[in-house]
Amino acid sequence: VRYRAVLEYDGADFRGWQRQAGRRSVQGCLEQALLDITGSPTTVVGAGRTDSGVHATGQVAHFDSVFERPAEELARALNAVLARDVSVRQLAPVVEHFHARHVATSRTYRYRLLVDEVRRPTERRRSWHVGPVDPAAIAGAAMQLIGKHDFGGFGTPPLAGGSTIREVSRYDVLLSDDSTVELVVQANAFLRHQVRRMTGLLVEVGRGRRGPADVASILAGGVAAPVRRAPPQGLVLEKVDYPADPAEWRTRSESEDMDAQRE
Amino acid sequence: VRYRAVLEYDGADFRGWQRQAGRRSVQGCLEQALLDITGSPTTVVGAGRTDSGVHATGQVAHFDSVFERPAEELARALNAVLARDVSVRQLAPVVEHFHARHVATSRTYRYRLLVDEVRRPTERRRSWHVGPVDPAAIAGAAMQLIGKHDFGGFGTPPLAGGSTIREVSRYDVLLSDDSTVELVVQANAFLRHQVRRMTGLLVEVGRGRRGPADVASILAGGVAAPVRRAPPQGLVLEKVDYPADPAEWRTRSESEDMDAQRE
Repeated sequence: VRYRAVLEYDGADFRGWQRQAGRRSVQGCLEQALLDITGSPTTVVGAGRTDSGVHATGQVAHFDSVFERPAEELARALNAVLARDVSVRQLAPVVEHFHARHVATSRTYRYRLLVDEVRRPTERRRSWHVGPVDPAAIAGAAMQLIGKHDFGGFGTPPLAGGSTIREVSRYDVLLSDDSTVELVVQANAFLRHQVRRMTGLLVEVGRGRRGPADVASILAGGVAAPVRRAPPQGLVLEKVDYPADPAEWRTRSESEDMDAQRE
Repeated sequence: VRYRAVLEYDGADFRGWQRQAGRRSVQGCLEQALLDITGSPTTVVGAGRTDSGVHATGQVAHFDSVFERPAEELARALNAVLARDVSVRQLAPVVEHFHARHVATSRTYRYRLLVDEVRRPTERRRSWHVGPVDPAAIAGAAMQLIGKHDFGGFGTPPLAGGSTIREVSRYDVLLSDDSTVELVVQANAFLRHQVRRMTGLLVEVGRGRRGPADVASILAGGVAAPVRRAPPQGLVLEKVDYPADPAEWRTRSESEDMDAQRE
């Protein structure tokens, strides 16, 4: 049976999503938990390959399992076995041609900036303290990034030589309270480090160190931007979208692998 | 010069506010930082004596220092020297009869409950996962706690035999999102463990295990409630209030020491 899972994790103590020998990864922990519960080796495929330190509240994954009792039982067993920094929020059987990464139509990430003059200890694990910035300038630059562009200046594709064209459909700049500016970005897929590089650029714009011309030239040039990427702890993978109609899940090629996000 | 400071800290790695030999406390860290900066031993007095693991975003403290340059310089120096889990949010000289604890007219605490069926890894350091509860039942019981009552059933006074009468002026139950119920309580002062015991009781009411009669009988009986106190990581000292008119800062007796909150 193929299962579709919605996962949440605190990225601080993981070396990212992807399984790596000798390093603690979210994928590795899930696969180990499934092995412990079912006795069968299981491969878990995630929609977004989040990087070391990046969090998720809405990561989506699929796996095939020999488990045959109700999905709620498997979810309960996983949440009992998994460490406290990862949990299965939803779990349901799904048709076999569902593929968490290939079928996804968009990913949504949120980045939390702390704009107080003074650092905030209670927020430090989930934000980047940048100090005062101009949110209007950030919003203007974020607007420039919306659309179908060559984002090669912001990151690398999953396969060397692959396309660096991606389509950003939304880039919201939210003033959630006096201390916090949240950047919510949605795209069909992201290049590796794209979100954190875009965030780094937007913060420089917000500090008045870069302007609209810099954003335009990085988008036009397609070369690696001399922009430091934002640190991982401010970033959360919030949502992965799929076509509502399962019939459309077949239409995307298995070989198409757009999402390289390792933020 | 006497200074008044507003402090923020992540309580996870502190054994509470109060200095104790051989244990890491917020007071101890501040006093050490002041000693490092000024070269003079300095005692820091906090408005609320938060307990091990409890956070603060608006703790208020006062201290007398030989430091004579502008307060902003001292704040900057403190924030450079202090560990990343504590910061000085505001610092200003204040008249010498200001006393952070004795002059305070109220304290406001916020407790964050997670009411999802499934635990949430990204919220675990700042909430208590209680699962589904009935917010309306909690709000009803919280209403019962508002007013001037003998809270002896919820905690102990700072000095053995001291008064256990306190006045709760506000107990809000906020549904901040699908996952979270926040309890915001304000009182002139709190007994030791009072907020966490009240929270524990409200959660039992929310689960249908206790009712209005239990709340009334604990308030009437004045004996220790057989209620487990809520864990510390969900609690934040948000605000301490003082009379707007500094003339009123003299009116409260130095010997009056109502606040024993060690949450």
